[in-house]
Amino acid sequence: MPNHRIVTGHPKAGAATAAAFAEYGSATVHEAMGRINHAGAHRLKPIQQGAAISGTAVTVACAPGDNLMIHAAIEQAGEGDVIVVVPTTDSAFGFIGELMGTQMQVRGVRGYVTSGGIRDTEELRRMGFPAWAKFVSGEGTVKDTPGSVNVPVVLEGVVVRPGDVVVADDDGVTIVPRERTEEVLEASRARAEKEAGTRKRYQAGEVSMDVNGLRPVLERLGVEYVEWTAE
Amino acid sequence: MPNHRIVTGHPKAGAATAAAFAEYGSATVHEAMGRINHAGAHRLKPIQQGAAISGTAVTVACAPGDNLMIHAAIEQAGEGDVIVVVPTTDSAFGFIGELMGTQMQVRGVRGYVTSGGIRDTEELRRMGFPAWAKFVSGEGTVKDTPGSVNVPVVLEGVVVRPGDVVVADDDGVTIVPRERTEEVLEASRARAEKEAGTRKRYQAGEVSMDVNGLRPVLERLGVEYVEWTAE
Amino acid sequence: MPNHRIVTGHPKAGAATAAAFAEYGSATVHEAMGRINHAGAHRLKPIQQGAAISGTAVTVACAPGDNLMIHAAIEQAGEGDVIVVVPTTDSAFGFIGELMGTQMQVRGVRGYVTSGGIRDTEELRRMGFPAWAKFVSGEGTVKDTPGSVNVPVVLEGVVVRPGDVVVADDDGVTIVPRERTEEVLEASRARAEKEAGTRKRYQAGEVSMDVNGLRPVLERLGVEYVEWTAE
Amino acid sequence: MPNHRIVTGHPKAGAATAAAFAEYGSATVHEAMGRINHAGAHRLKPIQQGAAISGTAVTVACAPGDNLMIHAAIEQAGEGDVIVVVPTTDSAFGFIGELMGTQMQVRGVRGYVTSGGIRDTEELRRMGFPAWAKFVSGEGTVKDTPGSVNVPVVLEGVVVRPGDVVVADDDGVTIVPRERTEEVLEASRARAEKEAGTRKRYQAGEVSMDVNGLRPVLERLGVEYVEWTAE
Amino acid sequence: MPNHRIVTGHPKAGAATAAAFAEYGSATVHEAMGRINHAGAHRLKPIQQGAAISGTAVTVACAPGDNLMIHAAIEQAGEGDVIVVVPTTDSAFGFIGELMGTQMQVRGVRGYVTSGGIRDTEELRRMGFPAWAKFVSGEGTVKDTPGSVNVPVVLEGVVVRPGDVVVADDDGVTIVPRERTEEVLEASRARAEKEAGTRKRYQAGEVSMDVNGLRPVLERLGVEYVEWTAE
Amino acid sequence: MPNHRIVTGHPKAGAATAAAFAEYGSATVHEAMGRINHAGAHRLKPIQQGAAISGTAVTVACAPGDNLMIHAAIEQAGEGDVIVVVPTTDSAFGFIGELMGTQMQVRGVRGYVTSGGIRDTEELRRMGFPAWAKFVSGEGTVKDTPGSVNVPVVLEGVVVRPGDVVVADDDGVTIVPRERTEEVLEASRARAEKEAGTRKRYQAGEVSMDVNGLRPVLERLGVEYVEWTAE
Repeated sequence: MPNHRIVTGHPKAGAATAAAFAEYGSATVHEAMGRINHAGAHRLKPIQQGAAISGTAVTVACAPGDNLMIHAAIEQAGEGDVIVVVPTTDSAFGFIGELMGTQMQVRGVRGYVTSGGIRDTEELRRMGFPAWAKFVSGEGTVKDTPGSVNVPVVLEGVVVRPGDVVVADDDGVTIVPRERTEEVLEASRARAEKEAGTRKRYQAGEVSMDVNGLRPVLERLGVEYVEWTAE
Repeated sequence: MPNHRIVTGHPKAGAATAAAFAEYGSATVHEAMGRINHAGAHRLKPIQQGAAISGTAVTVACAPGDNLMIHAAIEQAGEGDVIVVVPTTDSAFGFIGELMGTQMQVRGVRGYVTSGGIRDTEELRRMGFPAWAKFVSGEGTVKDTPGSVNVPVVLEGVVVRPGDVVVADDDGVTIVPRERTEEVLEASRARAEKEAGTRKRYQAGEVSMDVNGLRPVLERLGVEYVEWTAE
Repeated sequence: MPNHRIVTGHPKAGAATAAAFAEYGSATVHEAMGRINHAGAHRLKPIQQGAAISGTAVTVACAPGDNLMIHAAIEQAGEGDVIVVVPTTDSAFGFIGELMGTQMQVRGVRGYVTSGGIRDTEELRRMGFPAWAKFVSGEGTVKDTPGSVNVPVVLEGVVVRPGDVVVADDDGVTIVPRERTEEVLEASRARAEKEAGTRKRYQAGEVSMDVNGLRPVLERLGVEYVEWTAE
Repeated sequence: MPNHRIVTGHPKAGAATAAAFAEYGSATVHEAMGRINHAGAHRLKPIQQGAAISGTAVTVACAPGDNLMIHAAIEQAGEGDVIVVVPTTDSAFGFIGELMGTQMQVRGVRGYVTSGGIRDTEELRRMGFPAWAKFVSGEGTVKDTPGSVNVPVVLEGVVVRPGDVVVADDDGVTIVPRERTEEVLEASRARAEKEAGTRKRYQAGEVSMDVNGLRPVLERLGVEYVEWTAE
Repeated sequence: MPNHRIVTGHPKAGAATAAAFAEYGSATVHEAMGRINHAGAHRLKPIQQGAAISGTAVTVACAPGDNLMIHAAIEQAGEGDVIVVVPTTDSAFGFIGELMGTQMQVRGVRGYVTSGGIRDTEELRRMGFPAWAKFVSGEGTVKDTPGSVNVPVVLEGVVVRPGDVVVADDDGVTIVPRERTEEVLEASRARAEKEAGTRKRYQAGEVSMDVNGLRPVLERLGVEYVEWTAE
Repeated sequence: MPNHRIVTGHPKAGAATAAAFAEYGSATVHEAMGRINHAGAHRLKPIQQGAAISGTAVTVACAPGDNLMIHAAIEQAGEGDVIVVVPTTDSAFGFIGELMGTQMQVRGVRGYVTSGGIRDTEELRRMGFPAWAKFVSGEGTVKDTPGSVNVPVVLEGVVVRPGDVVVADDDGVTIVPRERTEEVLEASRARAEKEAGTRKRYQAGEVSMDVNGLRPVLERLGVEYVEWTAE
């Protein structure tokens, strides 16, 4: 197996399933999987507000400050994909901007997620091409160092393989392994429905202490109600 | 005194006074107190732009990644309160989201401030429920660990006791001790009035070097005016 | 030479040239100089979205938590200038707010850039006075410590001298040395034109792999195309 | 009450009690209080290895980059005290060095703890004067800004009042409120004794799963033992 | 498959092979694998100087501030193992100390690596039990939350599976997948031998510009030698 | 002027003068210059304890994760020099280790300072070759990207030109411009002598409040002495 490679023909989650996750959002999907695989917004920040996407991952492992492999990845990406770029070290460069975004958008790519940096954020917002990045920087990159496309990468502690589903919104990015998408989509739906019921009860004035049955939990843990006295 | 407790019946700043601070903002109020008690926005970031609130604190000390005590706190909170949640360590979880926010909003809670994390930021913005948080993350929490409600907490270096006034806007969060609210509100008003006068002079072209009498200060400190010469 | 000084009569880039950079933006100008002198947005964050300015630097070296020298700098600044404030250490105070911004705006100052902190961000946005800062904080400063105006400063690793051109937008801040402005403006224009041509090709469906001739680069670096096999 | 003040005649924990905590260390004492009041070494790092001290706090609230009030505090400190210095903002200056350390050592001060910076670490190690600091920096300070001595301060999220006991070692710094010292010392002793017994059992080959009765806990929480299968 | 599980009977790298890596160190082994799988010391810091170990991983995925699963892991660990603990979020607690270290040492565990925190560092150094941690803190943990043992974990961006080889020294931690150990050990040996030859040439005064044939590289890249002129 | 260049024949501070600074240390020299040019240890950490060096700078501007230009710099460096390496962005790689250190030591280079990373710290300590670095990491670099040697660089906010004097010890790194070395050395000597006198007075029990005449300063600033009262 060559050290640096562009992998083609990898398995992918079904397109309709992948697209359906966007409705539920990164938080609900992560809960539905058993609270795993969330690469939180406290590091991967959206460059826009209110965008919510999902799609199949095209992954890129690249050198810090070098965007060569992202060019190669764009050619591998198409309708319904999300490009996920992980530099091998923290790297506050603007790896892509409006010109790269144009190529992606033309090909039907849904969005861009990176633990590196991004630039031209104003233009990308204007184009309506959504992105999530760890850094924003106008600092440019070179095209000198080899890397790989469509190999497993680790995005802020979460493994992403090509064809896995990427769900991204204002709360961050959740990854659904391609083998589990049907099951997780079902669980997300169930969770969303249940939340809709709960929301109505809260809007009617009930509190989660009752709705979730938390009073016995507090008692078991020894939390007591006491009257305030001067400290 | 039990180690973990929910304190009831604590003293509170007057409701009208507490609400009146919002007009002056976290920066002016902090100045009016003698430049203390500001827990700056460089860590506690607003999830929306342009919100400015004030109200009486309901405080929560909770475990990292556990929102049990926030449920208990909501039941203790009502009209005009602000819920302040401090995990015992840095904790980038989404402790609350839209469902918890709904409960708070129904009860008349003014806003939510935390040195932990938050999620569903897009929904909370849409609902018009303002929040300030150190982290945004879709990562969920459990309900397994005891903590306390309405005990003194330390929010980014500032002590907050139940019933103290919380003033929050785009510049951050300022805490006014409940015993000092009348005096500080008066000082905030005076300061705002003075600033209005100063603003007019600046708009007319005067500079702070004259308005604030800074020329003798520079002279006393030995700052000299010199002509530029090639470096 | 006095240790603390306010330098007057320094050379400046031409006003029209300085103003012309805004159209090209911090990323393009930095590329046009050979990828240098970008003080990226990952630290210096705009307090607004979509502002793009350029102008001649008035520089301030000040003590942490002390804005005395900014008052002195305002008097030295005028039409087409950008005030650049560098505290001698990381300092999350609100060194300036709306009142200082008013003075600057009245005098025709284009914007404010600082590796310290800022406050009244909502008011500054409303006034349309653009700013870039490392920190947002309502915490106030004093006027007790000497410093200098119009001396060379180091802004996040980039040297800024009075009269140099500051280009700032959502991607960060780029500094053009005052001696190189004509040449760099020309190179920026050329680059923007070339990018316009490339953009059209991308919009028509071509990819950068071809447009930039990257296939031989990948080959030379030993990157191979391989079929996916179960990992 | 003057805004800036040097408080004298404050209550103090008993000298012998205060000194006795060093034997148990910051981790054990924090556990013995119910896992509170630890200002961890991940921010307050010892400048030496192996030092373990305890004593009564003399507290200092000072401006960033200004050590004036530390001079005033030294005069207030004596045999068995620990000086605790909290700048009002993160401040990577060398507030004190060997000359200040000499004064403290001559007066019988046990050690120095700060959420600011320190310098002359090599000399301080050679003198045997132990210190804990958030920053090490040779950068000097001024003596221009007022502050306070022996007022309550917040050290990395923990309140320290004058006369409280400071326990510091390689694991960080724990604060014992002056009213609780006898009770906490007793609990620390009990805990240390119990740990000595446990240690012997572990050295003899027993494991904490049995010694702490953790098997039913795992079972209750639904953790299952499963044979490995290819992933 | 249960969500939380303790996996037994996983495959492991051979004991002698695993132990042999220590001689080459985390940097050389990482190079020998093609510059991958290094979880650098800039985050995982050794608590001692000069220790160099290698062994087979026993992995732990645990909740922040909860060490329950580490107790379970110790029972699964034995001669030649290295325990690798990854909390699900950054967590500056002292998850283990001297008592846990005693159990490990008695069972022949070689060392402890964690992206969480550790305490009792002085005692662990005295015992000669080596450890690498992201945080040092005396702050204690609870035993309330389920997790897993011997599942794949992500340690600072690097995947670790049970039975993989962990190589740790003052430069950080490198992970060798259990299937590649023989090949990587051989490559490490070859690399070390080659370095020994190079070292001798350097000690004799040769420079890497010649030894590594870098002059043509500089020429190809357009780096020129120029005489200094006044800037 | 070529964009990437190796500059030869630059002016240097005198060798004896450069070497003489080590005795005074980075803190004293920085004070003697008027409290400027210190690139503090809170970021540039020594890899050893107790080393104190000074020498003339050979500067390197290199790409992140690429050590090509350091090889070129070694050939330019000799007796009494200190190599200063600044990557163009934060870069936690081990740019050099024991083999590069061997070359430097053989040539009489005094030490190594970098705002990038370093590896083989244990071997470098054993060899007695002192180094200061922002990161320690076993992660290796490539030799693919051009850069420059002996051009001005910005080291953690301080400008370093070739031939300037670098003073490094446990408190950090101070840079003395090559034109000012005689004057600054003299001022450092004077300062050290004065400190020796002060030290004696402190050892005899005097306090800095008297020795530095600080009582009137406190009075002027409005700091008052007050008796403690219950808070």
